[in-house]
Amino acid sequence: MAKIQAQILKGFRDYLPQDMIPREEMIDKVKEVFQKYGYSPLETPALEYQETLCGKYGDEGEKQLYKFEDNGKRKVGLRFDLTVPLARVMATNQNEISLPFKRYQIQNVYRAEKPQKGRYREFYQCDVDCVGATSLVADAEYVLIASDLMKALGVNDFQVRLNNRQILNGFFEYSGIKEKDVRAVFMIIDKKDKISPSEFNKELKSIGLSSEQIKKIVSFGKISGTNQEILSELGKIFNKTNDGKVGLAELTEVVGYLEAAKIPEKNYQIDLSIARGLEYYTGTVYETFLGGSAKDFGSVLSGGRYDKLIGMFMNQEIPAIGCSLGLDRLYAALVELKLVANKIQTTAEILVTVFDDSLKVKSFEVANQLRKSGKQVSLYPGDGNLGKQFKYADKLGIRYVIILGPDEVVQNKATLKDLTKNKQITVSMDQLDKELGI
Amino acid sequence: MAKIQAQILKGFRDYLPQDMIPREEMIDKVKEVFQKYGYSPLETPALEYQETLCGKYGDEGEKQLYKFEDNGKRKVGLRFDLTVPLARVMATNQNEISLPFKRYQIQNVYRAEKPQKGRYREFYQCDVDCVGATSLVADAEYVLIASDLMKALGVNDFQVRLNNRQILNGFFEYSGIKEKDVRAVFMIIDKKDKISPSEFNKELKSIGLSSEQIKKIVSFGKISGTNQEILSELGKIFNKTNDGKVGLAELTEVVGYLEAAKIPEKNYQIDLSIARGLEYYTGTVYETFLGGSAKDFGSVLSGGRYDKLIGMFMNQEIPAIGCSLGLDRLYAALVELKLVANKIQTTAEILVTVFDDSLKVKSFEVANQLRKSGKQVSLYPGDGNLGKQFKYADKLGIRYVIILGPDEVVQNKATLKDLTKNKQITVSMDQLDKELGI
Repeated sequence: MAKIQAQILKGFRDYLPQDMIPREEMIDKVKEVFQKYGYSPLETPALEYQETLCGKYGDEGEKQLYKFEDNGKRKVGLRFDLTVPLARVMATNQNEISLPFKRYQIQNVYRAEKPQKGRYREFYQCDVDCVGATSLVADAEYVLIASDLMKALGVNDFQVRLNNRQILNGFFEYSGIKEKDVRAVFMIIDKKDKISPSEFNKELKSIGLSSEQIKKIVSFGKISGTNQEILSELGKIFNKTNDGKVGLAELTEVVGYLEAAKIPEKNYQIDLSIARGLEYYTGTVYETFLGGSAKDFGSVLSGGRYDKLIGMFMNQEIPAIGCSLGLDRLYAALVELKLVANKIQTTAEILVTVFDDSLKVKSFEVANQLRKSGKQVSLYPGDGNLGKQFKYADKLGIRYVIILGPDEVVQNKATLKDLTKNKQITVSMDQLDKELGI
Repeated sequence: MAKIQAQILKGFRDYLPQDMIPREEMIDKVKEVFQKYGYSPLETPALEYQETLCGKYGDEGEKQLYKFEDNGKRKVGLRFDLTVPLARVMATNQNEISLPFKRYQIQNVYRAEKPQKGRYREFYQCDVDCVGATSLVADAEYVLIASDLMKALGVNDFQVRLNNRQILNGFFEYSGIKEKDVRAVFMIIDKKDKISPSEFNKELKSIGLSSEQIKKIVSFGKISGTNQEILSELGKIFNKTNDGKVGLAELTEVVGYLEAAKIPEKNYQIDLSIARGLEYYTGTVYETFLGGSAKDFGSVLSGGRYDKLIGMFMNQEIPAIGCSLGLDRLYAALVELKLVANKIQTTAEILVTVFDDSLKVKSFEVANQLRKSGKQVSLYPGDGNLGKQFKYADKLGIRYVIILGPDEVVQNKATLKDLTKNKQITVSMDQLDKELGI
């Protein structure tokens, strides 16, 4: 076989054990929270018909689709997100799925975009959605889910910021912003935190808003206080708008549930600037921000109600609410907050060394015994002397090393070294288990 | 948006919750065993350069590769197995990986083959490999891993069948079978169990073997007894062959470790007919069969030593041993053995119903309290009366249903129905937790 230069594709990455171990730990905790709320796992194929995928992601998205013709001349594409596949699943599994359908899905998605720091062409998305959620209890529950997720990951300083798209619609009605300008205004509001106030003004002016309208937007953005204070302020604005009244009633109901459940107000806050870039949200919207040294990471968990999307292949509207957890961003934030264990390259807690060929059997036996008592044990499967084996344990981050040399074996003992403490003791074989503090 | 007929691609499948829940349970147990042996998780991209993938899978494999040109005109292909990506990882991460490298990898692979019952174009592979395993303790450990896996999954009736490719090579030397015929003979031996003895003879004859040679093959195939008896028989045949002697010494050493670890002989057995179809094995080979009603499922866990493959991109030989767990087949076997829980469609153990709009808040509170005590709770997020909500719980397989009607709420009580027993009681709120036997 001719040797070729092996390369990984640009924008793709290997998850080596040192990357996988803490990520899987994080994902396991996340799944546990979803399951606590009765959400169940779903997986869908990496490939779908182009017809299913195309026309859903706008022009920019379309360009980023991995599309090709398969061997059977079918036009196919790689999964671009987990929402369109969910809509497809709802249409093709109508007999097997009962509504409300509560699912989570953690799978890679593929986007042929320009790779840059922290942006990959293959990355995990983690979506939780409740399809057929006609009740606003589901909306309120997402704040609990966010809150439980953060706590499960060790994060105490976080805040879910809540809004409702109908409130924004009501505000546009109230301030006389025309339908055709709404999209542009949304996009500007959405990047409010990333630009200066004067740039914000300038951008609004550039799309033709009057000074009066801009003033209304700015003062609307300044409404603050406790959640009840904000709701009361909104009541004054919205007594004459249709959408606004609906949005306010919804938000009031959601806040009511959260107050009843005694969720501390520091962990959720109405924030009228939350718009969400995507156009498909129809009601509740929210984002989740961390504090402390992770305050600049942006929202790690965002979502909302999107009642017009999930039935797209079924010719009907199916109400739905959900959220997307940004796993890469969240992981980076946990690293920043020092909530992720130091990089270790293995799951093994103990390395059982092999002294020489004549004592291999003994090492094999001892490793096997330790596993029976529940330990994670690597029996050294290479060659080389003890020095090499110690270096190996050290490099991989294995804490305990066990030596079974001729002296130990003759006395039915084992030498145990704790690499974190650089401490070594020789103990009788029945004491070994006890000495391993794991 | 125009309505299109949503379809799933032929040969692909959705894993709905009823499929995912028991599969994930199985996979979690599998991972736990791998970790007990110090194997660590690895994931690699779905896409690789065609140059990396092509030329590795033979003509048949090549045809089944999903290949295309990406937007940047790179020739890429979807992962076909997990071995070639492992070899690529070893080449491109030389500075980050210490040998011996013990990894497991559970990811989908893609094969554009004709879909048929139980064969899909996207399916999970589950590989465990030790790269840089110069020591035969690793070979012996795979029998322990197989054994622990089966026990973890509740299977007690199983057998690992062991052989060594060098023994087969030695046998070819001993019986004068020419190098050029070896491949054909291997392939016939490999399907021995699927064809009749007379067909077996006929096929061997058709490739030009003499009656004498066929007799030797048949009598070789009949060597049986305890492992030590077989080793002793082989000793008589192999005293004059080079490869045979090496293979016999290796197999003897491996069996020695397993005897020292007191693995019951019913769970592993030398089987000289195990050849493994793939040509790349160089030493130990093994397959794992189940008994009872799952005896016709074929091997659920197979592998061996392949010392010449993993260094393919590095211009060097790196010894390696590993195995592949057939997850789909294993799952089917567990279903056959009734070791998989009945189909349930949700992770929720309890459904908290919503009596009417005025009592939603109460249901919200109670659901939240139950979760705090560790329960998996779905708060009904749809609309409809109690009857509809009960049907929903029943259909999904949720065991407990809680009702919080006006009578209950006024008395600070809850009604709890156990759907498996069709039994209903009303208890005070502080008794609720106790009454839920979970």
